[in-house]
Amino acid sequence: MNIETPIAKAIPTGERPGSRKVYQPGVIWPDIRVPFREVAVHESAGEPPLTLYDPSGPYTDPRATIDIEKGLPRTREPWVVSRGDVEIVENPRQVKPEDNGFAQGKHLAPQFAAPRRVYRAKAGHAVTQLEYARKGIVTPEMEYVAIRENLRRQEGEPFIRDGEDFGAEIPDFVTPEFVRDQVARGLAIIPANINHTELEPMAIGRNFLVKINANIGNSAVLSTVADEVDKMVWAIRWGADTVMDLSTGRNIHNIRDWIVRNSPVPIGTVPIYQALEKVGGIAEDLTFDVFADTLIEQAEQGVDYFTIHAGVRLPYIPLTARRTTGIVSRGGSIMAKWCLAHHKESFLYERFEEICEIMRAYDVSFSLGDGLRPGSIADANDAAQFAELETLGELTQVAWRHGCQVMIEGPGHVPMHKIKANMDKQLAACHGAPFYTLGPLTTDVAPGYDHITSAIGAAMIGWFGTAMLCYVTPKEHLGLPDREDVKQGVIAYKIAAHAADLAKGHPSARAWDDALSRARFEFRWEDQFNLGLDPETAREYHDETLPKEAHKTAHFCSMCGPKFCSMKISHDIRDAAAAQNDVAEGMAQMAEKFRKVGEIDVPVGAAE
Amino acid sequence: MNIETPIAKAIPTGERPGSRKVYQPGVIWPDIRVPFREVAVHESAGEPPLTLYDPSGPYTDPRATIDIEKGLPRTREPWVVSRGDVEIVENPRQVKPEDNGFAQGKHLAPQFAAPRRVYRAKAGHAVTQLEYARKGIVTPEMEYVAIRENLRRQEGEPFIRDGEDFGAEIPDFVTPEFVRDQVARGLAIIPANINHTELEPMAIGRNFLVKINANIGNSAVLSTVADEVDKMVWAIRWGADTVMDLSTGRNIHNIRDWIVRNSPVPIGTVPIYQALEKVGGIAEDLTFDVFADTLIEQAEQGVDYFTIHAGVRLPYIPLTARRTTGIVSRGGSIMAKWCLAHHKESFLYERFEEICEIMRAYDVSFSLGDGLRPGSIADANDAAQFAELETLGELTQVAWRHGCQVMIEGPGHVPMHKIKANMDKQLAACHGAPFYTLGPLTTDVAPGYDHITSAIGAAMIGWFGTAMLCYVTPKEHLGLPDREDVKQGVIAYKIAAHAADLAKGHPSARAWDDALSRARFEFRWEDQFNLGLDPETAREYHDETLPKEAHKTAHFCSMCGPKFCSMKISHDIRDAAAAQNDVAEGMAQMAEKFRKVGEIDVPVGAAE
Repeated sequence: MNIETPIAKAIPTGERPGSRKVYQPGVIWPDIRVPFREVAVHESAGEPPLTLYDPSGPYTDPRATIDIEKGLPRTREPWVVSRGDVEIVENPRQVKPEDNGFAQGKHLAPQFAAPRRVYRAKAGHAVTQLEYARKGIVTPEMEYVAIRENLRRQEGEPFIRDGEDFGAEIPDFVTPEFVRDQVARGLAIIPANINHTELEPMAIGRNFLVKINANIGNSAVLSTVADEVDKMVWAIRWGADTVMDLSTGRNIHNIRDWIVRNSPVPIGTVPIYQALEKVGGIAEDLTFDVFADTLIEQAEQGVDYFTIHAGVRLPYIPLTARRTTGIVSRGGSIMAKWCLAHHKESFLYERFEEICEIMRAYDVSFSLGDGLRPGSIADANDAAQFAELETLGELTQVAWRHGCQVMIEGPGHVPMHKIKANMDKQLAACHGAPFYTLGPLTTDVAPGYDHITSAIGAAMIGWFGTAMLCYVTPKEHLGLPDREDVKQGVIAYKIAAHAADLAKGHPSARAWDDALSRARFEFRWEDQFNLGLDPETAREYHDETLPKEAHKTAHFCSMCGPKFCSMKISHDIRDAAAAQNDVAEGMAQMAEKFRKVGEIDVPVGAAE
Repeated sequence: MNIETPIAKAIPTGERPGSRKVYQPGVIWPDIRVPFREVAVHESAGEPPLTLYDPSGPYTDPRATIDIEKGLPRTREPWVVSRGDVEIVENPRQVKPEDNGFAQGKHLAPQFAAPRRVYRAKAGHAVTQLEYARKGIVTPEMEYVAIRENLRRQEGEPFIRDGEDFGAEIPDFVTPEFVRDQVARGLAIIPANINHTELEPMAIGRNFLVKINANIGNSAVLSTVADEVDKMVWAIRWGADTVMDLSTGRNIHNIRDWIVRNSPVPIGTVPIYQALEKVGGIAEDLTFDVFADTLIEQAEQGVDYFTIHAGVRLPYIPLTARRTTGIVSRGGSIMAKWCLAHHKESFLYERFEEICEIMRAYDVSFSLGDGLRPGSIADANDAAQFAELETLGELTQVAWRHGCQVMIEGPGHVPMHKIKANMDKQLAACHGAPFYTLGPLTTDVAPGYDHITSAIGAAMIGWFGTAMLCYVTPKEHLGLPDREDVKQGVIAYKIAAHAADLAKGHPSARAWDDALSRARFEFRWEDQFNLGLDPETAREYHDETLPKEAHKTAHFCSMCGPKFCSMKISHDIRDAAAAQNDVAEGMAQMAEKFRKVGEIDVPVGAAE
């Protein structure tokens, strides 16, 4: 299939407005190149460019050649191989008809064709970042993450930090050793399957910048190879730090290959979806063997983290019987159905140690799924939810014993006054493993606007300590998100994550707000647009009122017209006062000065 | 000017989808008719209709005749007159050329023509709700508000209440006497100018439902009479509880007349804007007399609350000199300029008692403006802001002494960890007077999305005790909001206000979420749409995926396809368990039952 045309048309490449892709090399590992987005400001500002975190990968590097049929460069492959503890899988698992839902002929999506080696740990070796960290090894992945989190701030450089972090241990400066220590203690993970060598490593942990995840997933039509790669690239362009591929149905295997090979961010999946496809959609027919086969299949492909709903235990299911909205996790309901059909404990729970052994051989991180999360305000913080959370804590320790990296999924729908209890209980029950929450939605009454109902909860739980926020799009509860929904979801969650970083007092957070506010105060309109989360939209809104190019350099506000705005006058006040040592004298002189400014004209504005 | 055609085209009338306008009469005052929106649900639910708060006025009553040239019915006029303490102003202030910015000829907007009496207090009489309350009088306005806040819940009817209210005193059931007591203590206001007899009274106070305000304002073109009435009706249709008219420039007087005469919600203004117009836009030329003349002009028109920036005192202005974004309140910067030009204390502060005497003669409520609110994260909670807040507390007591109702305006831009301090300081400094905040925006980095950055802060500060939230639209900082921006702002703030009500444990809050979640769980798609804040958008999003009419009654979720979704299976679990007294036996039977359910098919979904 020649997919070049649709892909080339769809995939957005090139730098963001006013931005430049820059790289910082490592010190311990000089050949690593950590990407940043540098936003230049007008020379009148007398400020250096602002450095922003950049998960967008080579797609925003004009020097990079993008060819999705070849996939991204496999930069990590030498790092993985040089550790000497992996072997090439001589007989990697072959694609079976059921892997793609028995799609054939013109209904079968093309295989990703570029050849690739498949790795796994040598017998007796642990190849997880957790095991390396425990051994005191600072991997290239760890140094990469350390550099990335500092946003090119130098150690000792001054910064503003006045947050409330609720007991987090955010350092002034992130060193590779700090990353190693956090990973060793299980407080952070670096999802990095040894078979995802295209990855730009990132960390998820309470003591790092808050991250966001975007969900994508194919629908049942063939064109989705191009669509899903495009959606992944689109999501990371706007700032998604990881992407979950929630595809089901036909072609699930082949589409996943295209996504992983072209993704610079960690890819997560819910393997039970594919396992269910393999048994013809009959939950009762699921077996551990089918599930384990699916884990190996996806681990060999390079999936970085698996959502596994091993906390949905048989005795917890009746606790959901009187809920307003029952079980709302698909994986959770599949396992509940299996447990009830067999009246047996979940095989995910009973054979969890075997699962760990598979995960550990490829360094696939656990995302322990909250299959019993509340699906409504009425069900928040109930017995079923917290019973499962306790089990996830128990499983965390099992996974850690096997050297596996772990994060914990959280709700869901939670009113504001019950959010903090979720974080506190997770910290207590799960021994500090990173929390990864969906929202939470703080009210049920706004279908069509759940990116907003949930951004409120996400910002708060991020502040309280959640390490990664799973986005919710405006289509939640109503339909499948399209490209615009993905963007709206990512932007709402970038807002939530950054608001959380600010409130936590993350040392890298405040510089961004201050740079934008200075640009605003100094009427550097282009800078204000470019420093914002969505320069194109900000510019468009501005131009609806004042379309002329000249207005973007003018020293006035589009709301208040050319002769007067509140910022203009306070600018004058500031300058005058700064010039005076004696405030009283300065004020007197200011009184004189302002007599001369002349006419004030106050047209309409959005705020008084 | 024949404005019927543009208005008729623009102003949206008719009931909301699935809704019916209903009224509840008073007991003390049997002729009052308190409006509600009743949302019927499908008969299969076996539930009564849900009652929602409804500020939309007669525009959503199909039995009402709307003629904006006549204005709304003056229902309150007999209430006002029958108290025997008002007199008809025999020589009301005549419209002067400067009131409309000297607009003339075809540039002059038409006067509102329908004749009307103008009232003021008889000499020696106080006509404020505060003074009536102090005297132990339960006015029709107070009973109206009491009925309105209960949403047709009967006293003693069970409800769910599990919030954290931070020391608020929200009663299980709102009685007219409770309203009287709250108003008497200054803890709540009922903004209700005796000349705004078209008003449907509402309360703003920490122990009532959280309210939201929408700002509108004319631009400089003549067509704005129709546009601004339309924007007001549009804002209240989506749920705005009050509307501020921030118009400036030409025709400001005439446009305000059209707005007040057609508004069922309280109208607020910032009189200094018009006063400034009257002195040709030269701040230094402002005088108390011009200002007082403007207050009387607008009080006679029926404006319900005035933003007055009397807390911007001369000594506080230098405190803003080193701010990142200086003074961002237009009213604040006008007064700062005046103070500096004359090197004198603000006449708003010095002659505050004279202002009180004007306000009290019409029952115009104070909205004490935060002229020194922070305009950026960097400036949040600084000395200038809190110095002004202390002064607003001092002025609150002065106003109360004169029998005037008061609320206090608040910021602005505040990171999450500094929000609660704003509420706590306001409560302490302002003696419990209601707090009315703009946002706050929790980060500066998202121009174009400040309805979201601020909905986060608004929800939180509403939870902490803020009584009314002033909306922010997506155009904030960039341009003038259009109709769609008004809607987006109102919806984001309805979300914030309701999330706050839920978290505070307001007895009327939970029923709404639960009704919608039950509809969702039972696949009553039409009910889910109609119970939501924006039925039209929810339906449109749904139909993008599953457009057929049949799908809206089908028992499956559009994300997971016809054969399976998590809610379907948990529904079955619930039914089965509920039928069993012995859980173990029930579970065994359930195991048998689910063997028979058959095939599961899991297509793509937005969330796992």
